[in-house]
Amino acid sequence: MDGANRILNPHLRSKVMSAHEAALLIPSGANVGMSGFTGAGYPKELPTALAKRILDANLHGQKFKIGVWTGASTAPELDGALAMVDGIEMRLPYQSDPTCRKRINAGEMEYIDVHLSHVAQFVWGGFLGKLDVAVVEVAGILEDGRLIPSSSVGNNKTWLDQADKIILEVNAWQNPHLEGMHDIYYGTALPPHRKAIPIERTEDRIGEPYFRIDPSKVIAVIETNKADRNSAFTPPDQNSQRIAGHILEFLQHEVKMGRLPKNLLPLQSGVGNVANAVMAGLQDGPFDNLTAYTEVLQDGMLELIKSGKLTCASATSFSLSPNALTELNADLPRFKDSIILRPQEISNHPEVIRRLGVIAMNGLIEADIYGNVNSTHIMGTSIMNGIGGSGDFARNAFISIFMTPSSAKNGSISCIVPMVSHVDHTEHDVQIIVTEQGLADLRGLSPKQRAKVVIENCAHPNFRPALREYYDRAQRYSPGRHTPHLLDEAYTFLPNWIANNAARAAWRQESTVQADAWAT
Amino acid sequence: MDGANRILNPHLRSKVMSAHEAALLIPSGANVGMSGFTGAGYPKELPTALAKRILDANLHGQKFKIGVWTGASTAPELDGALAMVDGIEMRLPYQSDPTCRKRINAGEMEYIDVHLSHVAQFVWGGFLGKLDVAVVEVAGILEDGRLIPSSSVGNNKTWLDQADKIILEVNAWQNPHLEGMHDIYYGTALPPHRKAIPIERTEDRIGEPYFRIDPSKVIAVIETNKADRNSAFTPPDQNSQRIAGHILEFLQHEVKMGRLPKNLLPLQSGVGNVANAVMAGLQDGPFDNLTAYTEVLQDGMLELIKSGKLTCASATSFSLSPNALTELNADLPRFKDSIILRPQEISNHPEVIRRLGVIAMNGLIEADIYGNVNSTHIMGTSIMNGIGGSGDFARNAFISIFMTPSSAKNGSISCIVPMVSHVDHTEHDVQIIVTEQGLADLRGLSPKQRAKVVIENCAHPNFRPALREYYDRAQRYSPGRHTPHLLDEAYTFLPNWIANNAARAAWRQESTVQADAWAT
Repeated sequence: MDGANRILNPHLRSKVMSAHEAALLIPSGANVGMSGFTGAGYPKELPTALAKRILDANLHGQKFKIGVWTGASTAPELDGALAMVDGIEMRLPYQSDPTCRKRINAGEMEYIDVHLSHVAQFVWGGFLGKLDVAVVEVAGILEDGRLIPSSSVGNNKTWLDQADKIILEVNAWQNPHLEGMHDIYYGTALPPHRKAIPIERTEDRIGEPYFRIDPSKVIAVIETNKADRNSAFTPPDQNSQRIAGHILEFLQHEVKMGRLPKNLLPLQSGVGNVANAVMAGLQDGPFDNLTAYTEVLQDGMLELIKSGKLTCASATSFSLSPNALTELNADLPRFKDSIILRPQEISNHPEVIRRLGVIAMNGLIEADIYGNVNSTHIMGTSIMNGIGGSGDFARNAFISIFMTPSSAKNGSISCIVPMVSHVDHTEHDVQIIVTEQGLADLRGLSPKQRAKVVIENCAHPNFRPALREYYDRAQRYSPGRHTPHLLDEAYTFLPNWIANNAARAAWRQESTVQADAWAT
Repeated sequence: MDGANRILNPHLRSKVMSAHEAALLIPSGANVGMSGFTGAGYPKELPTALAKRILDANLHGQKFKIGVWTGASTAPELDGALAMVDGIEMRLPYQSDPTCRKRINAGEMEYIDVHLSHVAQFVWGGFLGKLDVAVVEVAGILEDGRLIPSSSVGNNKTWLDQADKIILEVNAWQNPHLEGMHDIYYGTALPPHRKAIPIERTEDRIGEPYFRIDPSKVIAVIETNKADRNSAFTPPDQNSQRIAGHILEFLQHEVKMGRLPKNLLPLQSGVGNVANAVMAGLQDGPFDNLTAYTEVLQDGMLELIKSGKLTCASATSFSLSPNALTELNADLPRFKDSIILRPQEISNHPEVIRRLGVIAMNGLIEADIYGNVNSTHIMGTSIMNGIGGSGDFARNAFISIFMTPSSAKNGSISCIVPMVSHVDHTEHDVQIIVTEQGLADLRGLSPKQRAKVVIENCAHPNFRPALREYYDRAQRYSPGRHTPHLLDEAYTFLPNWIANNAARAAWRQESTVQADAWAT
């Protein structure tokens, strides 16, 4: 694809219009499937134009809301703009926009937190209602009408297949060398017609590099030249490095015990600084010929590819810092053999994750002493972002690791709690919990045995006495002692203990001051 | 196989001994993998003999405990006997024995609640420690040493492959015509060597009818002639029939909407009276050419096969009433084309369940207004039985249904609660909740929308006002309003409301009595 003209198909060329004009083609009440995954490959023009139209409608006293379905999180120009004008009726399956989050938690916007691997089949199966319009960014349009996918694939195949109407954004900012990097699988079906997904190794390509579409469904083509949102990563802090260290030590131990091959198994890693620290740790670690079967390609993984430590990474999207992106774009053809971008139904497919034996590494908000994990809710009631792909990977992984600093908010809150306030990953699905304090291997342990290692290995020393006290009390007074709990204290014990502790400390300090005063 | 001599291999014939002698070959501290799944195909002699040995050891002041791993639940002669003498150190992955349950909940026995599909790979991967001895019931031994499986397959292939030593129980009570009914798949592997499981339709046979073993590992063969534990089902009560009615109506609606084929998709159904009522409902329903890809074959499914409504059922075990069993055994060859018994790692394999698009129907202990399900714990602390295969099926199903009467204990407890006290199936994995009151279709609904339909469609009218009050209060006072909750009231609200309600009723009655007294 030549960078100058990215719309080679004459029919689609004839559909070019402004974002403002295209936005007029979307009616209120429509369900709109948008491209975009972790800030890559989202439409840059249409959503903002639509937000302006909604603003105008609001000013004229008209209600105008749409359903917004995406791959995962997008950017201020999409989620932010539409949420600012209160234009989203229902959002799914994952978001991380502050304005969206605020509206959802104020009860002003509905949000459904769906496993990322489930979205395509739910839409195809008609479980979420009709998809009216697809708005998809592409890197270009071939002469025969096929589309070159952009920097993320997400649910785009499903949107293009299922929507009544299609609006395309052709983004000249996207590297033309993306062509050929994608693997779009057209072999999926609804039951009873499903066949095995034929991936047996991370590097297996099973599809084609383009999206197929019905050109008659395309109602608008928008041209743009805007960059993906990319945020810089902070360099790994000491806690992240410690977490990474514990994970590396664990992996080496598993290899030594013969429970993992020398080059490990395909790695999956969530987004964020801890994940990046683990990748940095692998850079200096003893493992070679690594592979990654994951959702998102971050800086750390790119570094591993560059150094030759990682031979192949399969994902559905990039999520790179501006620096890493510049580097990637300068040298993209070199990475074509080692990076595959797939639809998220395939990157997160339970069947493939289980078969490959992925090592899943995901973050969390809080874990409890019995190994249940909350990935989504603050105080059980406010959504943070969503479960994303963590459930797809953790549930089907060969080894399922969850990682977090042991405390949050400058050490004032323990991330290890008696009972999580919301469960996204049950005790049945969590094998390893890691904090900067250490690692708890929960495999083969009963709930009570888990509680001991979680408290002693993972909790911050400041909160260990409180957690021990809760667990001791629970063992004594719990109605049942398989999973000892005091239900009427489970959520209040830790906050009360912390408050009392602060009071005790103040009292101790006051006593000391008085004692000092007396001493003088 | 001739019924008279079931041990055709001379070497294994030479290993025949009494259960008492065989029990002496199991040392304290051993991990023992036993056959048995929902009361079918468990060893009838060795466990009781071992329990007696443990009793003797205890009387001599010696501690003697073993780890007991099975397929699922067994019988009093196994779990009951060993638990009575406190002979079980660790139990997994599922049990339903009253003595076991009592010990676990008293904190005297450790129990790990593992997804049934995970057990084989955990053991093979070395995650649960060394498996020392396999104790497996078989229907017979071929001349070349291969084994004819019994009335359940469970984890037997894994036990026979992984254990250092093998003890076989050859049960002449088992129908010799079981030969040929099983499909033992030897194509599994640990990653990175896994291939697709080649099942594309319920009726696909992908393995062989026998277990292969290394005869040199066999240390004892025990002969027996004892029946499987079989319990009668109570005839479906009105509530079960109503639940079945709602499910049938739902399935018809889905077919009408084009979301399910006319002959539905492969059915999975948990064990119990409600499940049996659903099967009875299907007997009179409009669907033909049904199939079942499930864990356990109950009476209702057998009836569907007999009537020609169900063309093929794949499971890992039978769980029949004595009457149904007599009928099956009288006519077993007739069922050979329509029943397949597979290892539980295959009957419950996420890959196959997802591919076939199973309709999963499982029971529950309590569900909350936001769609989280507790299948295992009483008051968050005592285990009932275990998660069994419900997670394997619900998580990977095309449609995941949970069913329960709306209240328990003669109507004194609501099975719909503000917040479940233990989560086995998260809000992300529960699509349909059904009680005798009605059906809540949670697909495409946000948490708040779910709360409304769960309360109005599923809760018992006696508890609806309480649940509405909680939900209203939560919407007003919850710190976040994505999933409105009052954490300090979530577990006490309903019991308090019930107690207050009883007090109110008593007060009203007393007022009436006094009013009456004044009136006279």
